[in-house]
Amino acid sequence: MKIGFVGLGAMGSHMAVNLVRAGYGVSGFDQREAAVSELAAAGGLAASSSADAAGGSDVLLLMVVNAAQAESILFGDGALDSLKPDGVVMLMATCPPEEVRNLAERVMATERGFVDAPVSGGVVGAEAATLSIMFSGADAAVEKVRPLMEALGDKLFHMGDRPGLGATAKTINQLLCGVHIAAAAEAMALAEKAGVPTDTMLEIVSGSAASSWMLRDRGARMLQEDPVVTSAVDIFVKDLGIVLAAGVSNRAALPLATAAHQMFVAASGQGRGKEDDSKVIEVYRRL
Amino acid sequence: MKIGFVGLGAMGSHMAVNLVRAGYGVSGFDQREAAVSELAAAGGLAASSSADAAGGSDVLLLMVVNAAQAESILFGDGALDSLKPDGVVMLMATCPPEEVRNLAERVMATERGFVDAPVSGGVVGAEAATLSIMFSGADAAVEKVRPLMEALGDKLFHMGDRPGLGATAKTINQLLCGVHIAAAAEAMALAEKAGVPTDTMLEIVSGSAASSWMLRDRGARMLQEDPVVTSAVDIFVKDLGIVLAAGVSNRAALPLATAAHQMFVAASGQGRGKEDDSKVIEVYRRL
Repeated sequence: MKIGFVGLGAMGSHMAVNLVRAGYGVSGFDQREAAVSELAAAGGLAASSSADAAGGSDVLLLMVVNAAQAESILFGDGALDSLKPDGVVMLMATCPPEEVRNLAERVMATERGFVDAPVSGGVVGAEAATLSIMFSGADAAVEKVRPLMEALGDKLFHMGDRPGLGATAKTINQLLCGVHIAAAAEAMALAEKAGVPTDTMLEIVSGSAASSWMLRDRGARMLQEDPVVTSAVDIFVKDLGIVLAAGVSNRAALPLATAAHQMFVAASGQGRGKEDDSKVIEVYRRL
Repeated sequence: MKIGFVGLGAMGSHMAVNLVRAGYGVSGFDQREAAVSELAAAGGLAASSSADAAGGSDVLLLMVVNAAQAESILFGDGALDSLKPDGVVMLMATCPPEEVRNLAERVMATERGFVDAPVSGGVVGAEAATLSIMFSGADAAVEKVRPLMEALGDKLFHMGDRPGLGATAKTINQLLCGVHIAAAAEAMALAEKAGVPTDTMLEIVSGSAASSWMLRDRGARMLQEDPVVTSAVDIFVKDLGIVLAAGVSNRAALPLATAAHQMFVAASGQGRGKEDDSKVIEVYRRL
C-alpha cells in the first residue's frame, strides 16, 4: 500500500516516519524542503508536490494547518486527480466539521473514499504513536485506513459513518481544553490579586475536585515569567473559533467557550499569539 | 481540650464524631435534635443551644450553612460570650472572604482567636477524615487548632496569617469546580446536538487533555435521566455567587465564572435547585 503524506510539520513529520517504520511506502510533501529531505533520510520518498505525493497512492493523508490548505491541495494542486480512482483521502488535521463535510462530499463525488480522522495527543503522541484518533467515514474507507491509524495511535474512537463526526468530536475535545486553560488562568489571577500564595493554591487545586489535566499541565507555567512554548495562544484562537462555528452550525449556544475564546483573542491582541497558551493569564492580569 | 461544635449536618456530623474518636470532649449543637442525639450516642455531649455548646470551650468550631448563620450564632445567640476568654473560633463553613474578615475582626476585638479553615472533600472526606483544609489565622490561634485539623483532614494548607485567605482559597477552588461542571455540560450538550455518540465522546474527553476531575465524576450522570444527588445545583448557585463577590471585592473580572454561575442560576430557575448539579446540562438542552 502506497501512502501520499502532505504536511510534515511538528506532528506530521513524526507520523510519516511511524508509517515508514510500519512498512508502508510513504511519499511525503511539505512546503518546507528540509522536512521532505528528513523524511527521505528516514526511509520515505521525497515528493516534489502534493500531486506527486498523491500520484498512484492508495491513501492521501493530509496533516495540514487548516481546511483551506486541504482544499487547495486536493482541488487546486491536483492531488485528488493524482490519487488512485479507488483511493481514500484521510484528513487528520483539526478542521471545522462543516468544512470537513463539504470536502468529503466533493471527494466522494469522484468515487473516492473519505475518512475524517483528527487526532489529539500533540507532538509527544505523534512521536510515540500514542495518538487518540477520532474518526468517521463509510465502512469500506475506514477499513482501508484502519491499519494506518493503528500505526499512528493507540486509542481509536469510531464516531460514526458520516464524515464530520470525527471533526466534531475533536472540536468538543478542544472546547474543554480551551475552557480549562482559561479557567485555570482566571483562578490563578484571582489568587494573585487576592494575596493568596499562588504555589500553595496551585497545589490545592491540582489535587482536589477542582483539578483538570490542563490545570496540572499549564498551571505551573502560568506562574513563570517566560515559560517554554508547548502550544501557542493562536492555536486556541483558531481551535475555539472552530468550536464556536460548530456551535452556530448546530444551533448550540456555548457561553463558556465564547468567554474563553475572547480571552485567547485578547492575549493574541496583546502580541502574545506565538507565546505559550498559559500566557492567557496576562489578559486577566491586565483586565 | 473542650470543643464546642455547631452545625451537625451532612459533613459536620462526621467531623464531630472524628473529634470524639480523637479523644476530644465535643459538645455539639444543631437545630435538628436528631443530629444532637446521634452525636451524644457516639460519645459526644448534647448541648441545648449554641451558647451551651460554646460554654467553657477552648475552641468553638462552626460548620454552618453560611456566614449569616455564623454571625447569628456568635453574636445573636451569645456563643462568643460563652467561649473561654482565650478561646478560638474556628470557622470551617464556606463563606465569602469579605464576611469572614468582618467576623474575624469582631471576634478578635474580644481578644479571642479566629481561624478561617474551610474544607474540601465533601461528605466522603468528612467521614474518612481525609478533608483538605485551607486555613489562615494568627500563629497562636492556628497552633491551638492544628491538632483538631489533623484529626479532620489529611491535607492541611496554610494560606497565611490573615483570616479570609483560607476562605479565598476555598473560593478559588470552587471557581474551578463550578466552571468545570458547566463546561462538561456545555461539551456534552453540543455532542448530543451534533449527533456525536455521547458515551464514546465521554470516553475520549475523560482520557485526554480535555479531562477534569468534575468531568470524570459528573459526566456519566449528565447522560442519566435521574441521577443520584451527590451535590445540588443550589450549592453552586451559592458557591459561584461567593466567587463572583470575591471577584468584585478584589476588582478581578471573572468572565468564565460569571457565565457558569448564570447556568446554575438558570437550572435552579427551571426548578432543579435540589437536583444533582450534573443536571445543569438541562439548561444547555433548552437554551
